[in-house]
Amino acid sequence: MLPGPFLLENTVFDVIRYAVAADSIIEAGRFLYQRGWSPATSSNYSERIDDQHIAITVSGRHKGQLSAGDIMVVDLDGGAVQSNSRSSAETRLHTVLYQLFPEVGAVLHTHSVKATVLSRLIAPGHSLELEGYELQKAFAGVETHESVLTVPVFANTQDIDALAEETKSWFREHPGQPGYLIRGHGLYTWGKTMEDCLRHVEAFEFLFDCELETMRVRP
Amino acid sequence: MLPGPFLLENTVFDVIRYAVAADSIIEAGRFLYQRGWSPATSSNYSERIDDQHIAITVSGRHKGQLSAGDIMVVDLDGGAVQSNSRSSAETRLHTVLYQLFPEVGAVLHTHSVKATVLSRLIAPGHSLELEGYELQKAFAGVETHESVLTVPVFANTQDIDALAEETKSWFREHPGQPGYLIRGHGLYTWGKTMEDCLRHVEAFEFLFDCELETMRVRP
Amino acid sequence: MLPGPFLLENTVFDVIRYAVAADSIIEAGRFLYQRGWSPATSSNYSERIDDQHIAITVSGRHKGQLSAGDIMVVDLDGGAVQSNSRSSAETRLHTVLYQLFPEVGAVLHTHSVKATVLSRLIAPGHSLELEGYELQKAFAGVETHESVLTVPVFANTQDIDALAEETKSWFREHPGQPGYLIRGHGLYTWGKTMEDCLRHVEAFEFLFDCELETMRVRP
Amino acid sequence: MLPGPFLLENTVFDVIRYAVAADSIIEAGRFLYQRGWSPATSSNYSERIDDQHIAITVSGRHKGQLSAGDIMVVDLDGGAVQSNSRSSAETRLHTVLYQLFPEVGAVLHTHSVKATVLSRLIAPGHSLELEGYELQKAFAGVETHESVLTVPVFANTQDIDALAEETKSWFREHPGQPGYLIRGHGLYTWGKTMEDCLRHVEAFEFLFDCELETMRVRP
Repeated sequence: MLPGPFLLENTVFDVIRYAVAADSIIEAGRFLYQRGWSPATSSNYSERIDDQHIAITVSGRHKGQLSAGDIMVVDLDGGAVQSNSRSSAETRLHTVLYQLFPEVGAVLHTHSVKATVLSRLIAPGHSLELEGYELQKAFAGVETHESVLTVPVFANTQDIDALAEETKSWFREHPGQPGYLIRGHGLYTWGKTMEDCLRHVEAFEFLFDCELETMRVRP
Repeated sequence: MLPGPFLLENTVFDVIRYAVAADSIIEAGRFLYQRGWSPATSSNYSERIDDQHIAITVSGRHKGQLSAGDIMVVDLDGGAVQSNSRSSAETRLHTVLYQLFPEVGAVLHTHSVKATVLSRLIAPGHSLELEGYELQKAFAGVETHESVLTVPVFANTQDIDALAEETKSWFREHPGQPGYLIRGHGLYTWGKTMEDCLRHVEAFEFLFDCELETMRVRP
Repeated sequence: MLPGPFLLENTVFDVIRYAVAADSIIEAGRFLYQRGWSPATSSNYSERIDDQHIAITVSGRHKGQLSAGDIMVVDLDGGAVQSNSRSSAETRLHTVLYQLFPEVGAVLHTHSVKATVLSRLIAPGHSLELEGYELQKAFAGVETHESVLTVPVFANTQDIDALAEETKSWFREHPGQPGYLIRGHGLYTWGKTMEDCLRHVEAFEFLFDCELETMRVRP
Repeated sequence: MLPGPFLLENTVFDVIRYAVAADSIIEAGRFLYQRGWSPATSSNYSERIDDQHIAITVSGRHKGQLSAGDIMVVDLDGGAVQSNSRSSAETRLHTVLYQLFPEVGAVLHTHSVKATVLSRLIAPGHSLELEGYELQKAFAGVETHESVLTVPVFANTQDIDALAEETKSWFREHPGQPGYLIRGHGLYTWGKTMEDCLRHVEAFEFLFDCELETMRVRP
């Protein structure tokens, strides 16, 4: 008896689910680029295909002009599956989130001016604390503005494996927080669906803008 | 003789008027979302159908992508009519305005960065006073920039009934003022028609931007 | 022999030239509104038809949605010609410029946040002086950034006839300057053609933005 | 034997390559104008045709509305080839870059508010130094945010030949730097392809915005 089918069940992904995830990533890219949150080929996006595979952007592509050839598949260790393309250098920052949170269906990493500047203005070792904004309710599970949203700010590094471990440790301890910043670099956020995840990006960008606007008036 | 028709006259709304109001709300949502004034499923909008009914957005929908299924009917106490959907949590903030001002045909609640930040910068117990702007003439009934526009800022709360009463009391005393802010939350404004109401949103956003820009330069 | 034709030559305008001017105004409105420089039915625009007539926006229309019914004709005293519509309350601010400068073919009045805020920040009795910007060369006749552009700031008033006289006197003395501000109100600028005039609006808005941005950093 | 063909090989450009370059410049203009980086007929763009010729914008055209008639050919000394049009007054600032860097395929000069203001805020004799931004990796050859990007700021002048020599000297000494500012004027940047060059503009604008935003909060 051949082991093949059994093997396939564990290692092969559903092609249709890949295609649907790729479409969703392409559309997200158009939106995020148009908003100015993914300039100059920065940023990377992913969506879960199944418990072993995610669709993710190929490294270095123009995020407002993604097309079929720009979305590949990796396993949860970040290894390319059925592809010779190279996924984003930050692939491991995505996969640790999918490993840690089985309910997460999409992860978006963006590079806005506001996120970049705010992350540099926060003193090392401090988090961004957001409080008293009605829009905090845009995050899944938040029911009132009378709550505190904590956004950790990690130091930037080109050692992605180390940063991946750092984020994994932090969010294992704080599973209720919906995103983080990397200093001088950008935002990571996630959600059950791409729709939820995009709503989280919008809410974070809104709140970053509010914080900076307030700092401008009251430096 | 059957009481039915009489009863209907009092409790049933004109379906065509509902459909027209829904269309108008959908179009307003596209505009307001595109401007960045209703991000991340925030905001809610309504339009009067008759003296007993209003069309209003269903809770939690993406305001730039509203479609037929996202607009429901409530009576002036905020109760759902011919629908199992749940209207915005802030429905009562709309209905008190329709009760108070029989000439009001539309109410818009938006969540811009400027309104949010400005409302947090104004000290508790103070109103925003706008004076000397030609654009004040965009508000119905204002004929000169040499007038003072008073925008009260209410504390934010998740107790909508209490806030509804508070706004009702304030505007019963100040029927000539065209809108209010909720701290860290957003703007409410209204008008005889949706067109008037949209003009009021635009004028308020313009004036909020002017005030913040001035505060940036002269903190 | 009938005096008719002679009379017509002096008082009747060419309908085709009116239609072309109206089209040009409608298109300018779409551009200026989309940029945020004519919000909430503010602003008014005109284009010369001949030495006795100009096409001008009807009072109170949405400048991003102008259509055939929104552009009327006035003579150089501001009187409506062949129309029962009411032209902009500020019609006389347009006509004095056409009277003063026979080569002027278009006048645009806009209401941007930058123009409004900047005009309020400049002390009464002072002008805005622009110097050292390469973009000053966008104004007709300016050949170097080593020139000074003087933008007078007039006090706002609802007495348009008085303001019209004031602007007429100032520009008779300073025919080389391409525009002015009204405090808390907006910008007036003009050009030989609508294309020139739109370039002047863009250049002014760019320079106002630069000035405010500089003031933000160095208050 | 006729010398003609030999002569042609050295002085005549490939018409198809001109047409392709012109298309690419037209498309770049639409993008750059729409972003607000080339207002009021400012800016000029070029793309290399071969080692002796470049396609470049005709002087004074609206950069968001470029069409076939707005792109001409010059040789590497800036002389018009097969055309009676006048190329941008700053043509020599383009040609020195093509002479200096044989691998450069496109040069873009833009006039944004951010570049203009920032260039005026930097003290004469100083450069803008960018450090610690992940987006620095958008520039060809930059592998880490832990590098320093030096953007020289040249004094503005109407003597383009003198400025051309000045930039040539500086970049001969600093071939790894991707762009420069002219005070109160704008940005010059280049790349192997138009796509690279546009990515550089986006990255510079992002970084200028970050720097100004930081200065606003910490003047």
